[in-house]
Amino acid sequence: MEKSSTLTQAAKEHYMKLALAQAQKAQAIGEVPIGAIVVLDGEVIGSGYNLREHDQDATAHAEMFAIRQACQNIESWRLEQSQLFVTLEPCPMCSGAMQLARVEEVYFGAYDPKGGAAGSLMTILTDERFNHWSYVEGGILATECGQILTDFFRDLRKKQKAAKKARKLALKEADE
Amino acid sequence: MEKSSTLTQAAKEHYMKLALAQAQKAQAIGEVPIGAIVVLDGEVIGSGYNLREHDQDATAHAEMFAIRQACQNIESWRLEQSQLFVTLEPCPMCSGAMQLARVEEVYFGAYDPKGGAAGSLMTILTDERFNHWSYVEGGILATECGQILTDFFRDLRKKQKAAKKARKLALKEADE
Repeated sequence: MEKSSTLTQAAKEHYMKLALAQAQKAQAIGEVPIGAIVVLDGEVIGSGYNLREHDQDATAHAEMFAIRQACQNIESWRLEQSQLFVTLEPCPMCSGAMQLARVEEVYFGAYDPKGGAAGSLMTILTDERFNHWSYVEGGILATECGQILTDFFRDLRKKQKAAKKARKLALKEADE
Repeated sequence: MEKSSTLTQAAKEHYMKLALAQAQKAQAIGEVPIGAIVVLDGEVIGSGYNLREHDQDATAHAEMFAIRQACQNIESWRLEQSQLFVTLEPCPMCSGAMQLARVEEVYFGAYDPKGGAAGSLMTILTDERFNHWSYVEGGILATECGQILTDFFRDLRKKQKAAKKARKLALKEADE
């Protein structure tokens, strides 16, 4: 069964900006900047950002926090009629979580050709063999969502290069 | 790259019994009985059981608790060299979580032809397009792992039938 979006383009971009604000929180503490929100009836009922390094938890993805918070908020594991916004195409774990929570519409920003499970490498959310599937749309504010990641990894490489240079200099000084 | 098991059949069955003990904890509180453990160097470092209804959380699967506890225990999101045992073939979310946590070997009990992502409907854990893949083996104590689920759903149907009968009787009495 073909599913369709219930939102205008302006609404999609509005909510994606809120997901981007979550991604900025991750960036501020040195985490890969990915953010997500869950919307129900026009209200944000869950939000989260990547905390993998901070929490040292492989499952600490933005979407997982957003989904869990949404479930807590409405006191139900069924997020039917909800929309989820995430700045990067979701991985298999997060796509699976959205499917289990019966999220109705999934919107993501940048595509992830190396690990995306919402179209790039797999299509978990639209696989009709499972007992729930979602409307999926990628590329919402794709430039902004991609840029924050590009900037993060460029800065990270710079820092790593500077640290390497400092280590070399310290070794050279110790030799002299 | 073909991966192989590092465990004897006796060890696999020993650990699956521990996962089954977790499933029994779920059963005791009326949850679908699925249990999981994570083993590292012969030691159980994480365990969990399904709590979806109790927690009203779509992500509250046995494997997620076991993985998160294991990460906490070793203070690392990398569960390299670990083995995960789960009584039912993992869904896409849990298979994705194992992949993210770099679990080395995954053993499951009963197959899940309707939702399994470790061979039945998908093969997330052995998909070499991702940057980690695992050794996967299903069917460990498959009869016991399947039976606890069969018994649970049989009892559930009985209870539902009895409740329906009681409702009908109450309506009939109210009519008289």
